[in-house]
Amino acid sequence: MDHSPQLPLLDLSLDAAQLTARLVDIPSVSLDEKDIADAVEHALRALPHLTVHRDGNCVVARTDLGHAERVVLAGHLDTVPIAGNVPSRLDEDGVLWGCGTCDMKSGIAVMLRLAATVPAPNRDLTFIFYDAEEIAAEHNGLKRLAEHHPQWLEGDFAILLEPTDLQVEGGCQGTLRVLLRTEGERAHSARAWMGSNAVHAAAPILARLAAYEPRRVLIDGLEYREGLNAVRIEGGVANNVIPDGCTVTVNFRYAPDRTQEEALAHVREVFADCPVAELIVDDHSPGALPGLSHPAARAFIEAVGGEPRPKFGWTDVARFSALGVPAVNYAPGDPLLAHKKDERVLAAQIVECEERLRAWLTA
Amino acid sequence: MDHSPQLPLLDLSLDAAQLTARLVDIPSVSLDEKDIADAVEHALRALPHLTVHRDGNCVVARTDLGHAERVVLAGHLDTVPIAGNVPSRLDEDGVLWGCGTCDMKSGIAVMLRLAATVPAPNRDLTFIFYDAEEIAAEHNGLKRLAEHHPQWLEGDFAILLEPTDLQVEGGCQGTLRVLLRTEGERAHSARAWMGSNAVHAAAPILARLAAYEPRRVLIDGLEYREGLNAVRIEGGVANNVIPDGCTVTVNFRYAPDRTQEEALAHVREVFADCPVAELIVDDHSPGALPGLSHPAARAFIEAVGGEPRPKFGWTDVARFSALGVPAVNYAPGDPLLAHKKDERVLAAQIVECEERLRAWLTA
Repeated sequence: MDHSPQLPLLDLSLDAAQLTARLVDIPSVSLDEKDIADAVEHALRALPHLTVHRDGNCVVARTDLGHAERVVLAGHLDTVPIAGNVPSRLDEDGVLWGCGTCDMKSGIAVMLRLAATVPAPNRDLTFIFYDAEEIAAEHNGLKRLAEHHPQWLEGDFAILLEPTDLQVEGGCQGTLRVLLRTEGERAHSARAWMGSNAVHAAAPILARLAAYEPRRVLIDGLEYREGLNAVRIEGGVANNVIPDGCTVTVNFRYAPDRTQEEALAHVREVFADCPVAELIVDDHSPGALPGLSHPAARAFIEAVGGEPRPKFGWTDVARFSALGVPAVNYAPGDPLLAHKKDERVLAAQIVECEERLRAWLTA
Repeated sequence: MDHSPQLPLLDLSLDAAQLTARLVDIPSVSLDEKDIADAVEHALRALPHLTVHRDGNCVVARTDLGHAERVVLAGHLDTVPIAGNVPSRLDEDGVLWGCGTCDMKSGIAVMLRLAATVPAPNRDLTFIFYDAEEIAAEHNGLKRLAEHHPQWLEGDFAILLEPTDLQVEGGCQGTLRVLLRTEGERAHSARAWMGSNAVHAAAPILARLAAYEPRRVLIDGLEYREGLNAVRIEGGVANNVIPDGCTVTVNFRYAPDRTQEEALAHVREVFADCPVAELIVDDHSPGALPGLSHPAARAFIEAVGGEPRPKFGWTDVARFSALGVPAVNYAPGDPLLAHKKDERVLAAQIVECEERLRAWLTA
C-alpha cells in the first residue's frame, strides 16, 4: 500500500476490520479531521457510481439510481483525544484496540465498504461522513450540513453507525440541562442571623430530585426510561461567610414523546414551589422518535435481525428526526467502551455488520 | 524624627492616633512583620522599667513590680494584604484611613503608649505583640508563644486589643468546621438508574441545616448566639455523569459553655440519621468563657464603663482562656470595618481608649 505523506490512502478492498485499523491509524481528533476527510473523499471519488460532495471536513456520497426509497448511512470521522492508544493493535483473540475502534471508525469502515462493494443497491444510498461530533454542538458537521444543505440529509430512513453492539437502537432520548440558582445574603458565619443561606435554600430542590419518580414509557414497543438528576452543585464564598448563591445543575433525560417545550415545562413544574431565584436553560437537544413503525425501518429490522432496543443517550439521530427522517443507531462496538483508554471492538463484529447491511441492501 | 532605612523608628511621645498612623505606614502584611517587630522592640528596649523578650517576630515586654495581680495586653502586628490603602490618611473629620487602622494598629498604638507612659502601674503588666494572626492558625505567633513560652502569657486577666468599638466584648464563641461527604456511584446521566446520585444524597443534610434552630445562651449576663451553617457545597464530575461524591462544608459557631468535644458530639448528633459517608473535622477552635465574674474583669469593666457584649466571632482570647486566663476584647474601631478597603478608625476613639486604660492602670 502506498503511503503518501500528503494523503493517507485507503484501500477499500480490505475487509471492514482491516479498514477500521487503517482508519484508526489516521489520527482525527475533533477539529483535526482534514487528513481523514481527504482520504475518505479521495477513496470515494474513485467510485464511478457515486456523486461526491465536500463541505469543510464533511464528505457526502450518493447513488442516484431512481429508486423509490433512499437510505442514509451516517457517521462521524472524529474521535476524542488519543490516550496512548494509537496506532491500533489486533490481538490474538481477534480484538482490535485503539482510539476510535468502537466510536466509531468501525462504523465508518462499514460505510466505506458498502460504498465500494454495493454499486447497485436495492434502495438509493446516501453516505454522510462528518466532523466534530465529540465536542460542543456548535462545531458538529451534521448540524452544519442540516443547516446549509438539508437536501443532502433527505431520505426515507437513516442509520447512524454509532456503536450499539450490533443491536438496533431506536430513536434517542432528549436532554435538557438547566441551572437552578438560589439566592441568599452574605454575612460573617459568626453572625449568621444577619444573612440568609443560599445553600440551605437549595434543600427543597435536592429533596425534590431525591424523591422524583422518573417515567418509563413505551414507544413503538421500546421502553424509554427518563431521569432527572443533579449533575453538579456549587455554592459558597469562603469558610467563614454565609453563601449568597448556590447553583444546582440539573440534567433531564426525557423520552422522545415529549417535545422540547413540554420537557422544559415539566422541569419548571417539578421545581415550581422551590425557592429558585433563576432557572437558566444551559443546553437542550430534543429526543428522536424511534420511527420503527415506518416500512423502511421494519424492513431493516427484519433483515438485520435481533430485538430493537431504545437508545437512552442522545445521538445525532435527533437531527434526522428533526428533518422528518426516521433514524436508528446500528453498528459494531459496545457503547460503554466508547471514549475509554481501553477502547476496543471485536473484528468479527465489524465484518458481520458489513455483511448484514450488504444483505439488506442487495436482497 | 530620624528615618533610618534599616529601622523605622517609633516616637512613643506621639499621641495614640498619631502613633497609629506611623504604624500603618510600616507595612506588615502577615509573614512580613520583621520591620514593625524590630521597630516595636527597639522602642520598648529604650524603656528601663520593662523587660523585653523576642521570639521570631513576637515581642513581649513586662513590668516586674511584685504586684499581686498581672494584666496581659495583647495585639497582633500583622494586617491583611494592603488594598491601595497605605500610607494612612487623616481626614478633616478626624477619621484615620488605611490598612490596619482598625484591625489593629490602633490597639498596638494604645499598648505602646501605655508601655511608655505608665512606668508604675497599679498591676503588673505584660505587653504581647505577635505576628501572623490574619492567616492560617499554624503561623499564629500567640499560638507559638503559648506552646514555647506559656509563662509569658500568664496573668490574672487579659485584654486582647481587637476592635470592639470601645465596648467590652467578653470571651468568644468556638468554631468548628466539618466536611460532610456523601457518596454515590457514577453512571452516564442517560442511564442514571445504573448509578446512585451523591448530590441527591445530600438532600437530608441540607434539610437538617435549613430546619436547625440555633441556641441562644446566657453566660455571665451575655447572650451568645450559635449558628450551624453550610458555608460551601460542591459535587459533580461532568454535565453527563451522575455524581459519585458531594461535600457540604458546615461551620458550627458555638457558645463557650460547650467544650470542643461537646460541640463535635452535637454536630454528629444533628446529622446522625443522614447518609454521611464521612465526617471530617477540618478546623476546630474552642470558645472562651467571658470570665466577667472574675474580680479583675469586674474592676476593668467598672473602670472603662459601658455594657459588656458577647463576642460572636472567634478571637485569640480563646488561647488565654485555654491557659486559664480570663480574657476580653477591648479596643477602638468598628469590627465590621476590619479587612475592608475603606478600613478606618476615629482618631479620638484611639486616644479615648488610651485614656480609659491609663485611668484603670493608675487609679
